[in-house]
Amino acid sequence: MSPLDPRLASALRELFGDALLTDPGECLAYGYDNSKRRATPSAVVLPENADQVQRLVRLCREHRTPITARGRGTNTTGASVPIEGGVVVSFERMNRILRISPDDRVAVVEPGVLNGDLQAALAEHGLFWPPDPTSAPYSSVGGNLACNAGGPRAVRWGSSRDNVLGLVAITGCGERIRCGAPTSKDSTGYDLSRLVVGSEGTLALIVEASLKLSAKPESRRSLRALYRDTGSAARAVGRLMVQAELPSALEFMDAEAVRLARERGGADIPDAGALLMIEVESAEGAVDAARDALETAARNDGLIAIDRADDAQQRESLWAARRALSPALRSVAPGKINEDVVVPVSRLAELVTRLQTLATRHDTHVVSFGHAGNGNLHVNLLHDPADAAQTKRAHACLDEVFATVIELGGTLSGEHGIGLAKRDWMARAFDTDTLATMRRVKVAFDPDGILNPGKVLPSENDAR
Amino acid sequence: MSPLDPRLASALRELFGDALLTDPGECLAYGYDNSKRRATPSAVVLPENADQVQRLVRLCREHRTPITARGRGTNTTGASVPIEGGVVVSFERMNRILRISPDDRVAVVEPGVLNGDLQAALAEHGLFWPPDPTSAPYSSVGGNLACNAGGPRAVRWGSSRDNVLGLVAITGCGERIRCGAPTSKDSTGYDLSRLVVGSEGTLALIVEASLKLSAKPESRRSLRALYRDTGSAARAVGRLMVQAELPSALEFMDAEAVRLARERGGADIPDAGALLMIEVESAEGAVDAARDALETAARNDGLIAIDRADDAQQRESLWAARRALSPALRSVAPGKINEDVVVPVSRLAELVTRLQTLATRHDTHVVSFGHAGNGNLHVNLLHDPADAAQTKRAHACLDEVFATVIELGGTLSGEHGIGLAKRDWMARAFDTDTLATMRRVKVAFDPDGILNPGKVLPSENDAR
Repeated sequence: MSPLDPRLASALRELFGDALLTDPGECLAYGYDNSKRRATPSAVVLPENADQVQRLVRLCREHRTPITARGRGTNTTGASVPIEGGVVVSFERMNRILRISPDDRVAVVEPGVLNGDLQAALAEHGLFWPPDPTSAPYSSVGGNLACNAGGPRAVRWGSSRDNVLGLVAITGCGERIRCGAPTSKDSTGYDLSRLVVGSEGTLALIVEASLKLSAKPESRRSLRALYRDTGSAARAVGRLMVQAELPSALEFMDAEAVRLARERGGADIPDAGALLMIEVESAEGAVDAARDALETAARNDGLIAIDRADDAQQRESLWAARRALSPALRSVAPGKINEDVVVPVSRLAELVTRLQTLATRHDTHVVSFGHAGNGNLHVNLLHDPADAAQTKRAHACLDEVFATVIELGGTLSGEHGIGLAKRDWMARAFDTDTLATMRRVKVAFDPDGILNPGKVLPSENDAR
Repeated sequence: MSPLDPRLASALRELFGDALLTDPGECLAYGYDNSKRRATPSAVVLPENADQVQRLVRLCREHRTPITARGRGTNTTGASVPIEGGVVVSFERMNRILRISPDDRVAVVEPGVLNGDLQAALAEHGLFWPPDPTSAPYSSVGGNLACNAGGPRAVRWGSSRDNVLGLVAITGCGERIRCGAPTSKDSTGYDLSRLVVGSEGTLALIVEASLKLSAKPESRRSLRALYRDTGSAARAVGRLMVQAELPSALEFMDAEAVRLARERGGADIPDAGALLMIEVESAEGAVDAARDALETAARNDGLIAIDRADDAQQRESLWAARRALSPALRSVAPGKINEDVVVPVSRLAELVTRLQTLATRHDTHVVSFGHAGNGNLHVNLLHDPADAAQTKRAHACLDEVFATVIELGGTLSGEHGIGLAKRDWMARAFDTDTLATMRRVKVAFDPDGILNPGKVLPSENDAR
């Protein structure tokens, strides 16, 4: 960590007062994320309003000093790790819900509000914001937007990008841009909002977001279906996704995940080649019919068993297998590489089969589960980080996982983003022309490359 | 119209053969749109594949010659009028449906396929592509994407931008970019697809699109509700839009529209301050419950009458008032300025009231109807183009309509786009910083400004 230019340090002290942290111990706490990567920034600032953020960017631009935006550091890709030092801007104090407008189904928020706190405030109005990553109780809306977070509900309501209407953001030039509109329809010029969403703090810093809300359905029904093999489960997914009432969750577990949940997690389920958790949410008067339609769609000649849950207790029991999985994974190996690749639903069975082949070839323990309705699979490569050979095999396997996904017409990430973890894979996922255009877009927003340098775009020929 | 540089003309002849048109009479037919504006290009080309489009852009870039992309010219803003001459590229021969993948709910198409032809092909699979502009039978998917077209169904399924997964496009640099993925979830780098959608051919030429499909619900029910005043109708809209099953159409007519439909269009409806057409689509077993829920939501103390339609004949009868409107408008005045402004739903009643005040002040006949669930109103200013004073008053009124919409937190266009018609209003809708960023994005895609020059962004300080 190199110290800041003294003139910049002094200007930041004037701007932020006690909300400027420079003690290395304090700074270290703002330099990690859930990828286990870490780097210590030269300083951390905790702005309270958009003006401070704009002045911060202008100062850092003058001094060509990197700025890495930070929500709560729950992301898994290294996107919030300040690998080139400089200033981390944590939005933890910009955590107000500015306005909830139920008639317009819009909430206007600062980026630091926690997803869970927002949901609690919306519930009073019978509304919710669809993105529901596992981290929701302790991840920020700004972070959700930065990596285009999803979650189980994305299968019906879409990811963060599908649920944002407008943004106020500070570009790398220090401009304050207002993009989009707090309306559900807009054909007015270039859609900068959805471009900034998912850009992981490399294009602009979001200081305010207008979010698209949905009505919380009255009732929910759950089904758990066990299949002989992945092919049968994948066929069911195809049929489930063309029902009039789409599932509000459609989660998949592969054979190994089912086995681990039973043998290590204590879940009371029979052996199966694949498992689907299927949920539907609707009005009380319509939910049973919708559940019946999904149950019919889930049945095929590969179905072993299907169980229903109509109340909270039964539901908890059905979800037990899925919830048992994470502790079970930890009991197998201390380390896990957790990717979130996506393939077209029609290629899901082929992906799972090929993952099994790769696991054997690389002698690596691979467990897959995830959001089947989107073809979004969490591929977990289990290994012991203390065992260098095992870790090397896991990484070699991962390399082939990505190659397979691209070959199957899929994409590197469905909801985690790219960050550092998948950055070098971007050059294999996109051709030269597309990457060149992305680099020029980066320059259009951030000509000096001060916003989260080294992330998303591969470093070779980087336009910075 | 100035002739093309002879070297360019010769290169285009070699590339396109008979698919290059230079006869001024023929070219004229490719130089208008539904805005009534027109300009004659120097040449028209009819490519049959993406390679030809890419080579076209490279040639035109060498010669700094404008290229204006054209679907079927049904847009209303002048976006497809080649005001700076050059070459019009009509996609009428790139009209193939390349692939329909029902399990993935994806169709891959060339830009020239007609929306209606695509829907017919999808119907065989029980699927549809949600955008349904009035022009659907004779407008192209590429044109729909270029202006982010919507239609009644957008209230439930979103507009074009919400229903595209990936694009192949040729930038103004002549690069072929592949953005997005044929998957329903993607957090991989910058989302260039949704940026190109709605950019009206100013950033890149779409040569292939992967479209997000939805399952066509089995059954439909319709309601027609009459209200004493706009406020009561607007309150109903607010409640209708938070039901578990959203309306699949929610159309509004103001008092003047109701009167015209009855008195001039012969519709059998009583006098009313506002009318809502409400539809819901769902599975056969669920549709009646959904209709009942919407009917309950539509009821308030301002309701005059509500009628149901359960079959096609009854439905036709309920829609008669709406269908009578367009011929009725033509009988009032030969000219009509038709805008498609949007305000937050909570401001809809205020907008309609203020439009009435503006109509009186400017002595202009104003009739409003449109997509109430999105706050998207078609404001029609009726006038006789032969009457200069009347036309001048209509345009003065329009100016205040836009000012009012911006004041109410709305946006200039919900589904028609900007083109030439609203270009100069962009500087009042967006601040300097946001416009500057949009201009740099334009340069990132099209550094020489050859793609549809003069559209979308206001000309002053244009970055071209």
